[in-house]
Amino acid sequence: MKETVMSITYGVHSEVGKLRRVLVHRPGAALARLTPSNCHELLFDDVIWVKQARVEHLTFVDAIRHRGAEVVFLREALMETLRDIEARRWLLERRVNDDTVGVGFADDLRAHLMEIDADPLSLILMGGMSKAELPIKAESLFAHTLRPEDFILPPLPNHLFTRDTTCWIYGGVTLNPMRWNARKLETVNVAAIYRFHPDFRDADFPVWWGDPDNDYGLATLEGGDVMPVGNGVVLVGVGERTTPQAVGQLARALFAQGGAERVIACKLPIERASMHLDTVFTFCDRDLVTIFPDAVDKITAYSLRPGEQEGQIDVREEEGHLTDVVAEALALNKLRVVQTGGDAYIAEREQWDDGNNVVALEPGVVVGYDRNTYTNTQLRKAGVEVITVPGAELGRGRGGGHCMTCPLIRDPI
Amino acid sequence: MKETVMSITYGVHSEVGKLRRVLVHRPGAALARLTPSNCHELLFDDVIWVKQARVEHLTFVDAIRHRGAEVVFLREALMETLRDIEARRWLLERRVNDDTVGVGFADDLRAHLMEIDADPLSLILMGGMSKAELPIKAESLFAHTLRPEDFILPPLPNHLFTRDTTCWIYGGVTLNPMRWNARKLETVNVAAIYRFHPDFRDADFPVWWGDPDNDYGLATLEGGDVMPVGNGVVLVGVGERTTPQAVGQLARALFAQGGAERVIACKLPIERASMHLDTVFTFCDRDLVTIFPDAVDKITAYSLRPGEQEGQIDVREEEGHLTDVVAEALALNKLRVVQTGGDAYIAEREQWDDGNNVVALEPGVVVGYDRNTYTNTQLRKAGVEVITVPGAELGRGRGGGHCMTCPLIRDPI
Amino acid sequence: MKETVMSITYGVHSEVGKLRRVLVHRPGAALARLTPSNCHELLFDDVIWVKQARVEHLTFVDAIRHRGAEVVFLREALMETLRDIEARRWLLERRVNDDTVGVGFADDLRAHLMEIDADPLSLILMGGMSKAELPIKAESLFAHTLRPEDFILPPLPNHLFTRDTTCWIYGGVTLNPMRWNARKLETVNVAAIYRFHPDFRDADFPVWWGDPDNDYGLATLEGGDVMPVGNGVVLVGVGERTTPQAVGQLARALFAQGGAERVIACKLPIERASMHLDTVFTFCDRDLVTIFPDAVDKITAYSLRPGEQEGQIDVREEEGHLTDVVAEALALNKLRVVQTGGDAYIAEREQWDDGNNVVALEPGVVVGYDRNTYTNTQLRKAGVEVITVPGAELGRGRGGGHCMTCPLIRDPI
Amino acid sequence: MKETVMSITYGVHSEVGKLRRVLVHRPGAALARLTPSNCHELLFDDVIWVKQARVEHLTFVDAIRHRGAEVVFLREALMETLRDIEARRWLLERRVNDDTVGVGFADDLRAHLMEIDADPLSLILMGGMSKAELPIKAESLFAHTLRPEDFILPPLPNHLFTRDTTCWIYGGVTLNPMRWNARKLETVNVAAIYRFHPDFRDADFPVWWGDPDNDYGLATLEGGDVMPVGNGVVLVGVGERTTPQAVGQLARALFAQGGAERVIACKLPIERASMHLDTVFTFCDRDLVTIFPDAVDKITAYSLRPGEQEGQIDVREEEGHLTDVVAEALALNKLRVVQTGGDAYIAEREQWDDGNNVVALEPGVVVGYDRNTYTNTQLRKAGVEVITVPGAELGRGRGGGHCMTCPLIRDPI
Repeated sequence: MKETVMSITYGVHSEVGKLRRVLVHRPGAALARLTPSNCHELLFDDVIWVKQARVEHLTFVDAIRHRGAEVVFLREALMETLRDIEARRWLLERRVNDDTVGVGFADDLRAHLMEIDADPLSLILMGGMSKAELPIKAESLFAHTLRPEDFILPPLPNHLFTRDTTCWIYGGVTLNPMRWNARKLETVNVAAIYRFHPDFRDADFPVWWGDPDNDYGLATLEGGDVMPVGNGVVLVGVGERTTPQAVGQLARALFAQGGAERVIACKLPIERASMHLDTVFTFCDRDLVTIFPDAVDKITAYSLRPGEQEGQIDVREEEGHLTDVVAEALALNKLRVVQTGGDAYIAEREQWDDGNNVVALEPGVVVGYDRNTYTNTQLRKAGVEVITVPGAELGRGRGGGHCMTCPLIRDPI
Repeated sequence: MKETVMSITYGVHSEVGKLRRVLVHRPGAALARLTPSNCHELLFDDVIWVKQARVEHLTFVDAIRHRGAEVVFLREALMETLRDIEARRWLLERRVNDDTVGVGFADDLRAHLMEIDADPLSLILMGGMSKAELPIKAESLFAHTLRPEDFILPPLPNHLFTRDTTCWIYGGVTLNPMRWNARKLETVNVAAIYRFHPDFRDADFPVWWGDPDNDYGLATLEGGDVMPVGNGVVLVGVGERTTPQAVGQLARALFAQGGAERVIACKLPIERASMHLDTVFTFCDRDLVTIFPDAVDKITAYSLRPGEQEGQIDVREEEGHLTDVVAEALALNKLRVVQTGGDAYIAEREQWDDGNNVVALEPGVVVGYDRNTYTNTQLRKAGVEVITVPGAELGRGRGGGHCMTCPLIRDPI
Repeated sequence: MKETVMSITYGVHSEVGKLRRVLVHRPGAALARLTPSNCHELLFDDVIWVKQARVEHLTFVDAIRHRGAEVVFLREALMETLRDIEARRWLLERRVNDDTVGVGFADDLRAHLMEIDADPLSLILMGGMSKAELPIKAESLFAHTLRPEDFILPPLPNHLFTRDTTCWIYGGVTLNPMRWNARKLETVNVAAIYRFHPDFRDADFPVWWGDPDNDYGLATLEGGDVMPVGNGVVLVGVGERTTPQAVGQLARALFAQGGAERVIACKLPIERASMHLDTVFTFCDRDLVTIFPDAVDKITAYSLRPGEQEGQIDVREEEGHLTDVVAEALALNKLRVVQTGGDAYIAEREQWDDGNNVVALEPGVVVGYDRNTYTNTQLRKAGVEVITVPGAELGRGRGGGHCMTCPLIRDPI
Repeated sequence: MKETVMSITYGVHSEVGKLRRVLVHRPGAALARLTPSNCHELLFDDVIWVKQARVEHLTFVDAIRHRGAEVVFLREALMETLRDIEARRWLLERRVNDDTVGVGFADDLRAHLMEIDADPLSLILMGGMSKAELPIKAESLFAHTLRPEDFILPPLPNHLFTRDTTCWIYGGVTLNPMRWNARKLETVNVAAIYRFHPDFRDADFPVWWGDPDNDYGLATLEGGDVMPVGNGVVLVGVGERTTPQAVGQLARALFAQGGAERVIACKLPIERASMHLDTVFTFCDRDLVTIFPDAVDKITAYSLRPGEQEGQIDVREEEGHLTDVVAEALALNKLRVVQTGGDAYIAEREQWDDGNNVVALEPGVVVGYDRNTYTNTQLRKAGVEVITVPGAELGRGRGGGHCMTCPLIRDPI
């Protein structure tokens, strides 16, 4: 009967329009593998109390649902995807092979995993598998050289930040080549979902750019840097994670396929605080942004537009402050700006604790962490409804509501 | 009427006997100065939501009081101390001088601080003062070279860990020369309290060792390494913070003054996880300890006893495992041991989150963080009553109940 | 007349047999780009006085030639390769594209480089090109975001260590997927030489394993870890740079093509001192090795042999000390062992200064740095002829004679 | 006959006047203890080939002597000092005590060292003593906890930089409280020489400031930051090593004793390259300086002069570039400036290799490392005679001719 079901129309047409459907990931097995010894390699500063993080995440999800958005859980989506035998084969070939687990038992392990239930398999493909958990005998050199707690398949704790792995930009999506090895496999998992899960497989949308089978080298892109702000404009941060090589390719792809008309590349200062554009700059309302001025004031903006000839890109360095450039791009007189609140110490702390990383559920309504009381107050004084959620554990991953959401359907403004 | 009041008899005669009086410090101004930029220099891995940390600390204090212990707050004690003009002068001479704030306005600043109320003064001496907060004009080179948010007087956020600065060992106390500059001034503050606060000034107790006016060079001692376990025995960790040079001096002082009969020096492995002995080993009951075996199994123990001649110390390397050495020293057949709970990942995480850093309120009753569910469960299975308190914020300082308490009066076992 | 020339027969049949032909790289433009700011990213601890390093390298080359080996210079080989228009196209497509230099001028830059002389082109492809040196106007986002001293094409200073990029193992060669991004492009350069340079193009040899167009993920291999010690045996270090995933693939490829009969994987301790196997273990004579015992004593050896079925590998953990395992594999009673010389301080220093990283020119004749006087003396006492060369500058790259030579033709023993 | 000898008149009256007598230290035992494991703690980036460093240092000394300056060797001076029994006692009490080597054998060790020859004793007090070298049985806890290669008395490899420990400023000297623990003991050694060595004991000079028995806390001063440039002016860098708290105390002491009339404090940017003022700025002639503009352009200068009242200091922030401020202070129209030579890469490298750290032997004649060919050429073009010495090993300590010399007598200009 499937054939008669209307397929879903995906698309994210702004940063603050009504949020209709969003992809999130509940903290789980992968985060439970973090230890003080391995967390830095896995891009975490600290370990997390997972049970409590799950409670906090439930509160976050409730806040989103309460405003009418449909929430898709990444692990469920992966599990449902893995019920498809072809999907399972496609994904296991990319995750379990001679390069990842070594010659000698890749075939056996893959064969084994082909047979287990989709539920535990999805857990393994996101949460990892240690040598101690190996379900089959492994006579490979790789397995020999590991200690019991070392990983055969690595945990992917950064799946928590669903925003980064793929980005919906207006009517299509990107499959992002991530900056660090610890995150590259996330894209493979999500690509499998888009390719095989019935909710996506049957939908009609272009992949603007990105292919997990391709090695993009220096051209890396992460979703925390990408914002389809409306009016055919896309903001893209250029910094530690996203390179100009990737932004150029993205712009060319968008222009060629009619996905956008202008890309504003925002060159971030090289500082730990400004990992992604959305750690220092997010939209809260049609014309209101919250920013961390210490970083944003140092941003240089470049506008990319289609060039005169096919495939060419016109690049222009902008003179003004980023907020003015964006206002002009959105045909607004001016952006209202709410800075990170408090004195010098508090502002630095609240930026660090994702005070500027809020996610809008609709124009003027955002979700943020309760701990950023100064910034939240400033937003409220500016007329923004700030729904607060606890982040004592969630926030240790250094990501807020914006990082933890990958909007699938959002209205234009 | 004070004169007629019986003076208090201080003394800590065990690690698990009934806790009668204890010194703690509520999170406050100093922690509010932590930022991602300065926290590492101040020995913190992360910033803390202070308001919430205060709530958690209240819960902790309530748990202590509920079992009948009297709680002394460090800032109140300092404030009361500073009402004494002589105390104020003694402390300000040591805190505000040409070495700390530079030639040219040390005298003016000290004169100014001599005049302000004890309440704000205690806040400044614990929480620091930035250049922006300078109450007087400063024409000194030092002040000229600072930015507004730089500190004239530094915040002392590690006051939270009252255990470390001074240690009550049976009937006397030590004033500890701390390992890192960020903590050395804590000892001066607490020394002022012991010297001038009426509750201590009028009490009769020896200072076994330590003088904040003396530079001990390599001989540094921190209270997290010191445990008066009973039977005249003192355990002392030797590691990053406490050196053998200090332990030798402490032992000699204790033996000469009859303060203890045996010191067991515990050489810790050089690892971040074992900063102090009490991060990997604490007592929960007369014969029960909780340990992190990865670290404790690597400890080499040395017994120090009075030598044949006056002032001599007999040093002997012990053969057995630390727990056996301690059992023998306490004349027990055996110590019951509860290891950090869970699998390899969880055990490492719970040790990191102070699962082995509990504080006993009486034999078999300890306070620990709620997050260490595996270790707490193991302790409960062994018959220990574990009172849990929240530590989402408090625990970011990497210290648990043991670190945050400086027992002043505790019964023998 | 070329057609009538006998083609060269490449092959490295031992670690100490007569060295006939060897590939080296003279310090040059790439090293001249190292600065204290960029050197760590380029895997160097320090900057080098290039002019002096070139003098030292000349001495090194003289020592090699004096014993009759023919020396091939990498840059000359690349220059000669680039005279071939097809080679030039093949290499420039891989070096100058949208992933490396960004959309918008990759085509223009490649077109420009297609036209310049082979000499400056080879310099650019090894030494890099800064934005300030750009020969054409660049309107790309990538170029816009760079400072004048930033690199459009990166310098490849580690080409100095020709050993690592490709390895001749008996009659064939590998094209190694390198561990760090800073070195991956070296393999592309050398692959172009092997593929297009007349001296190699016309020779008949198999590529056992490795393809620069392939992304091997976690399977990385570096030549400093690989030693064809004779008797059909290959030693391979497993450590920071070479992974078991790669060793398994190499072994399978060698066994399938008859390249070797046994691979001994040597699991190195994770320490800075043991980056490659040849930093702690090299052969000096048929039965004599020099080792750094602090590291070598911690090596666990695994023997890989063809399994019973096609494509299978038999992996066995060895019980004995590595030197005994190797002796047995070479059908020797025993290996003579010369340890790094001097007391604890000197041994650690001389290992660091490549005292154990000598290269044999023939059995019993090695080249080493003059500074390792203690280790050199021990070798001489054992009957080894040690030819010393200066390494004050060369050695700052943390590589000795073994690292700086890629033998192309070496006799069996 | 000693009594009839004229005592020496010490004094350093400029940065470039004729150098008459200078204190240096030959590389020796302390540097031979450096290893890759311990060198960073001892403030070295790398290990050094000591034998070769000694040859280079001889060349350096020859260059100095050739121009007529008398060279005093620190170890000889210390050895001669230790022939005085009172000096020996004074020094051993400060070097061997309960804080440094622990309770239990400090007395025995000191007693032993009182009896050995001055020659080996001076070696021990500069080069350190490992546990393996202990001449007597040690039953102390400290000795028990050490490995054989750990130090009972630490090596002081930074003695090589005689400039830093004490500074002659016009007619007197300072005994500097050093920034890092690894260097604090150097001041004790040199203080013993000044106090007890006949060449100094009988000379008449004031100690402007500094007492090795005093703990100055945050007030630290290092000679690489101090330049008595003439005209009663002293330049002092303020940065990682020298604090404004110390500069204020120094200025007050100089003004009170008539030692100088103006101190120009130079606030350095916080960067590894500008550790001391003399790493980025040195005088080569009466009116010529060599500078590293990347750092010097960021310096803010403050003039300190005697205030209106006794003991007061007038502090004024200067507006102009440092070179203009200094020119004005020296009553020159302008300073001629020679920048670090070469392109962006070379300039950064040559600054790193001490291209701006030359020492003048007389006006217009300086000694520098041979490796800084670009900067040396620029200096020569400006008319400076640059005597070059090899620095392949010496320079690994990151100090050039200026750092390695402590002028004792230098003419005014």
